[in-house]
Amino acid sequence: MSENKIPYKIYLSEDEMPMAWYNLRADMQNKPAPLLNPGTGQPMTAQELEGVFCTELVRQELDNDTAYFQIPAEIRDFYKMYRPSPLVRAYCLEQKLGTPAKIYYKFEGNNTSGSHKLNSAIAQAYYAKLQGLQGVTTETGAGQWGTALSMACGYLGLDCRVFMVKCSYEQKPFRREVMRVYGSSVTPSPSESTQVGRKILSQFPGTTGSLGCAISEAVETAVANPGYRYVLGSVLNQVLLHQSIIGLEAKTALDKYGVKPDIIIGCAGGGSNLGGLIAPFMGQKLRGEADYRIIAVEPESCPSFTRGKYAYDFCDTGMVCPLAKMYTLGSSFMPAADHAGGLRFHGMSSVLSQLYADGYMEARAVKQTDVFEAAEEFARVEGILPAPESSHAIRAAIDEAVKCREAGEAKTILFGLTGTGYFDLVAYERFHNGEMKNFSPSDEDIAKSLAQLPAVPNALA
Amino acid sequence: MSENKIPYKIYLSEDEMPMAWYNLRADMQNKPAPLLNPGTGQPMTAQELEGVFCTELVRQELDNDTAYFQIPAEIRDFYKMYRPSPLVRAYCLEQKLGTPAKIYYKFEGNNTSGSHKLNSAIAQAYYAKLQGLQGVTTETGAGQWGTALSMACGYLGLDCRVFMVKCSYEQKPFRREVMRVYGSSVTPSPSESTQVGRKILSQFPGTTGSLGCAISEAVETAVANPGYRYVLGSVLNQVLLHQSIIGLEAKTALDKYGVKPDIIIGCAGGGSNLGGLIAPFMGQKLRGEADYRIIAVEPESCPSFTRGKYAYDFCDTGMVCPLAKMYTLGSSFMPAADHAGGLRFHGMSSVLSQLYADGYMEARAVKQTDVFEAAEEFARVEGILPAPESSHAIRAAIDEAVKCREAGEAKTILFGLTGTGYFDLVAYERFHNGEMKNFSPSDEDIAKSLAQLPAVPNALA
Repeated sequence: MSENKIPYKIYLSEDEMPMAWYNLRADMQNKPAPLLNPGTGQPMTAQELEGVFCTELVRQELDNDTAYFQIPAEIRDFYKMYRPSPLVRAYCLEQKLGTPAKIYYKFEGNNTSGSHKLNSAIAQAYYAKLQGLQGVTTETGAGQWGTALSMACGYLGLDCRVFMVKCSYEQKPFRREVMRVYGSSVTPSPSESTQVGRKILSQFPGTTGSLGCAISEAVETAVANPGYRYVLGSVLNQVLLHQSIIGLEAKTALDKYGVKPDIIIGCAGGGSNLGGLIAPFMGQKLRGEADYRIIAVEPESCPSFTRGKYAYDFCDTGMVCPLAKMYTLGSSFMPAADHAGGLRFHGMSSVLSQLYADGYMEARAVKQTDVFEAAEEFARVEGILPAPESSHAIRAAIDEAVKCREAGEAKTILFGLTGTGYFDLVAYERFHNGEMKNFSPSDEDIAKSLAQLPAVPNALA
Repeated sequence: MSENKIPYKIYLSEDEMPMAWYNLRADMQNKPAPLLNPGTGQPMTAQELEGVFCTELVRQELDNDTAYFQIPAEIRDFYKMYRPSPLVRAYCLEQKLGTPAKIYYKFEGNNTSGSHKLNSAIAQAYYAKLQGLQGVTTETGAGQWGTALSMACGYLGLDCRVFMVKCSYEQKPFRREVMRVYGSSVTPSPSESTQVGRKILSQFPGTTGSLGCAISEAVETAVANPGYRYVLGSVLNQVLLHQSIIGLEAKTALDKYGVKPDIIIGCAGGGSNLGGLIAPFMGQKLRGEADYRIIAVEPESCPSFTRGKYAYDFCDTGMVCPLAKMYTLGSSFMPAADHAGGLRFHGMSSVLSQLYADGYMEARAVKQTDVFEAAEEFARVEGILPAPESSHAIRAAIDEAVKCREAGEAKTILFGLTGTGYFDLVAYERFHNGEMKNFSPSDEDIAKSLAQLPAVPNALA
């Protein structure tokens, strides 16, 4: 098919939706480092992990060799509510920029949870249900993951207990209400319902909570209740596996029109979207079948790739979870309060960290106001109000397209538009009113939190 | 194609998107009554209307004979951002209800403005731009129309001045911010910027505004500024014309799979969605080519079809606009303060009013809490958080599907899902907390506002 015939939106048919998730680890020569037990310093065993996570999900987490995992029919049926998601040719943005570049974006915001998080939420909820569990627990900060998990559990009739960081619970009542529409119980964290919550409340009576504390409460609740397990929306290998559907669909759609991207761009917080989008392309690159420039875009205020250290660290600020080897700013690192949206995790997926360490991808950090400027420019011509997270990728895509204009090069750019910004309008308002600031942590601040990295056996570090 | 092959979502290709809007009036034997000049009692002339509306839109407004209006290429390009919109087979809802009925819905919420209003907003903005105008003015209550118009004007680089009912401006800051993202100026109404606004503010210093007042301010601003015209998101014939794309796409998609609906259901406020959805089906019915049950669903708190009078009335509470013949509760009628969402207009499209008077469609009024119950049931299985307006149609669709279950009949139901409920979570919260009330106006209240209907020449009444 000629390139002239490419529509604004490429919708695959349901039959073209991938039958299996792709496990990028299978094609990695240097496998991601294993999770370590913080007590023993030894790799976490399946048995240890199964106290917290569902059995099948533990299998997926630990399997570095199987390239494809069949997507169960029930999950495929759920996916059909909103998948295949559209791959959009950004004709209007290209025209606005006056660039010869061809820009495509894979839009994952076309479901009520408003983001790609639903791809893994339904998978994790499904395996919990299959195992005969009664429910799952999780934490949520900004609320994207909690909403996605609520939708998945509402659909399957699974109990869902969300610990929502208290300040977010109070400031984002709408996020909370969407979760309640789907039948979840939403508890502001720290709460009186867990030991760790009561302890923190007694130590810091006026605290508005933190993600680290909410994780601890969710894990404690899962472990304390026999029919429950804990689930997580990013960072983990299993999450990247489920999210591979983003990249698989994008690649199928591009292949259909004979298009090969030169540059692939994704925003990066814990890595769920970026890892999913790039999966099949990175697979080709690892196997030497094709080459792509792959760019991770992170906030200047939380620059784990660009200014972090590749080392073993805790996944949570509460230091109760296993250790993961990753690019990290230190588990006590807190992004500036003025930072809007997600992408505020101190570390990064172990898979992506290893690939970055091995030189398979680039990373860049961008300023918050530059991100919102790109978001608004995009919204006006492409008609989608992007989430602040997604807008990091938009920023980099626009920058690359402008470079193409200056160099007169017609490169093909693919980026991930992970979600919508309906619940982020307070941040947009601050941007409009000129109240939004940029923040770059000082070298001293980063050094201070990195000084607290845990000690691990030399052989593993 | 066999019915077994029907996917969850039917996406037409861009080539299958209609090339022309369908003007239902061309097939009506009894044409809708003309707009009257409230001063003279005579039909409004094109010249009179052109002081307020764009020339091409006036032509569309007055033309009761031309069956098809070509959609300009520029509008078609804009439509491709979000159209063809999906026609969804509600497999999950059918299963949940245990009904043999086959349920389809046309989903118009898959754009950032979150509703079908964008279909007419882009058309009206386009003709304003084509006429060389500098900008448009409008009013918005809940904010759906103002958001849609802002998106359209942002895309075309047209100035957009929105008068937003003050209480809504203050209570829905996010709606306001979305409009600002798209570059609109949003003024709380009543304001100091118009004569009528200043007059109302001096008479009622603490007022939080009304739609009627915002309309008056928008009209005054359009008339007072040479390069401006006023635009409106519902009620008018031109709006129904543009919205016919909903029904045309739905019919094309159903025809492709050999499906003929038995029952077509839409929510009804001013009639923009209902008129658009039913257009081609009603056309067949009027021409005697096919029969369908067509059901308008309105709120019990604003029951213009089911309890109003078919008569000439003002379109606005300020009584400055032309008179329209329609089912009306009287222009001074105000729905109960507890009523959530839109569908609060006191009258109804003249086209739909005439069709209802002639027995071509049914109408029913539903209770608010029943509507939110249906909304939540739908959201949990179909994965879309519906707008309260759209949920009126969901309520009726579920009721019809349950009747099918009881009667063992496998009828095919089509309904319009006009938009998403992201900005209506205060109402969802009230529903969850058991604070939502139902309200049915008393006969006395309706009689009181109907007593103020304007006098018109006998020949026209």
